[in-house]
Amino acid sequence: MTVRIPDGLLVLETKADVKVWRQAQRAAGHTIGFVPTMGYLHEGHLSLIRMATERSEVVLASIFVNPTQFAPNEDLDAYPRDIEGDLRKARSAGCAAVFLPSVSEMYSEDAQTSIHAGALAKGLCGESRPSHFSGVCTVVAKLLNIVGCDLAVFGQKDYQQLAIIRRMVQDLDIPVEILAGPIVRESDGLALSSRNAYLSKEHRREALSLSEGLAQARSAWQKGERSAGTLRQAVADVIKTRPSAEIDYIQVVDAVSLEPIEVDCAGDALIALAVRFGATRLIDNTVLEV
Amino acid sequence: MTVRIPDGLLVLETKADVKVWRQAQRAAGHTIGFVPTMGYLHEGHLSLIRMATERSEVVLASIFVNPTQFAPNEDLDAYPRDIEGDLRKARSAGCAAVFLPSVSEMYSEDAQTSIHAGALAKGLCGESRPSHFSGVCTVVAKLLNIVGCDLAVFGQKDYQQLAIIRRMVQDLDIPVEILAGPIVRESDGLALSSRNAYLSKEHRREALSLSEGLAQARSAWQKGERSAGTLRQAVADVIKTRPSAEIDYIQVVDAVSLEPIEVDCAGDALIALAVRFGATRLIDNTVLEV
Repeated sequence: MTVRIPDGLLVLETKADVKVWRQAQRAAGHTIGFVPTMGYLHEGHLSLIRMATERSEVVLASIFVNPTQFAPNEDLDAYPRDIEGDLRKARSAGCAAVFLPSVSEMYSEDAQTSIHAGALAKGLCGESRPSHFSGVCTVVAKLLNIVGCDLAVFGQKDYQQLAIIRRMVQDLDIPVEILAGPIVRESDGLALSSRNAYLSKEHRREALSLSEGLAQARSAWQKGERSAGTLRQAVADVIKTRPSAEIDYIQVVDAVSLEPIEVDCAGDALIALAVRFGATRLIDNTVLEV
Repeated sequence: MTVRIPDGLLVLETKADVKVWRQAQRAAGHTIGFVPTMGYLHEGHLSLIRMATERSEVVLASIFVNPTQFAPNEDLDAYPRDIEGDLRKARSAGCAAVFLPSVSEMYSEDAQTSIHAGALAKGLCGESRPSHFSGVCTVVAKLLNIVGCDLAVFGQKDYQQLAIIRRMVQDLDIPVEILAGPIVRESDGLALSSRNAYLSKEHRREALSLSEGLAQARSAWQKGERSAGTLRQAVADVIKTRPSAEIDYIQVVDAVSLEPIEVDCAGDALIALAVRFGATRLIDNTVLEV
């Protein structure tokens, strides 16, 4: 069912609704931008929507907490939701429509096809979340096919996800342009994430060590430091001072291949990390450009 | 490079060529039908092309011997090729264009994304060719994305492939209609296959046992036989009389789920088989409808 909420945003609940909407946009000669999200929108998502509005004539965002990218022990059921707030924010950022499908609308009971990323999905988050990126690739391919957009925007906070999606789009010849939006941070540096909502006051304070650690490494890089081990240690030294921080990984990898840099960085490098505070797993990263 | 051969067929060698062609067809308001092949076209392929011409305004066929669906021990290098003959036949069957990409045009060196079918790919040919259907799914998804067709036609001789592709298109929301063309047989019953070209005169004679065995089972089915074991045995009894025949599998499966039927057939059944004659592996099947 298509619902038009008072301020003009279209809320599309089925694939068929999206198809009708897309055909109307095409008939009107509009280019279509797309921002897939899992909802609980924050300024990071909104910056992606704004980027899409600058590059296309109409923008659709999807809000779908995709179960296939969560492992059984992860936070699918607890994932924060606020549909009403999301629709308001999406509208104010410039969305013309939001696709808000149910799980059964997205996945038939006998669905069995999946998309697998290769080497890019092995390390970093792929190590502790082995089925995660297959779930991401599959749902993103589905959404791109459903929306039939000209361009789609993803955030660089999920750097590995962005690299994998770019690779998938190229490898499968999906006719869409992928754009990347920079990480948006709180004024004190914490990268925006829907999962920040889980943090206790104390964990919120300690979580600042992620961006602080990355800033330390960035500062060392700017002074000429190229040893992957030293750069990694600069991040770890900050994070380890926080008693609740449990490091999943801190890695210095090639910014293109995502392969670990063993000794010195020769080209652009990425420092990426995932750290738990209590039950909340946060990620952050920074690209170090030569 | 786009080459127009004398009788008007367009030969497109790059994805970019196909895009230009597609855009011209769309601008002219034409619907596009697509028939993917591995070349060495025979009447089976041509029947699919004709079916496509009946349901769409322009038809493109692809000729691409896809390396990723061959295992290292299989017949990739020996696979029969006759491009000149293929172009002539494709044209006479009604193709407007043929996409004839090189391997490097289809796969970049660092390609790493793949599509995996689920349960449908486990049995039958998937048992002796474990990576085959992943290669098929990946290349078919790529081709569908490159061509951007309204419909694509596949042959029922590759029944399992057809079922997997239908499933993939549904599971990944690929916006295309999949049509199936019936098996085309020689006058004596042998199912047409590019691989028939490999057969010695004697193996050709013995290979007739495949369609003969299936016809025996079909006859028993029509008389009311529903025991999967008895139906299977009816096929095996014929094939085993041929000294060179090495049975890869003969199976009676549910025509929808492709799961083996253990005792009696309750709904539509498929008898599918793969048999080797020397180095040549042939497949055939028949659907038994209630």
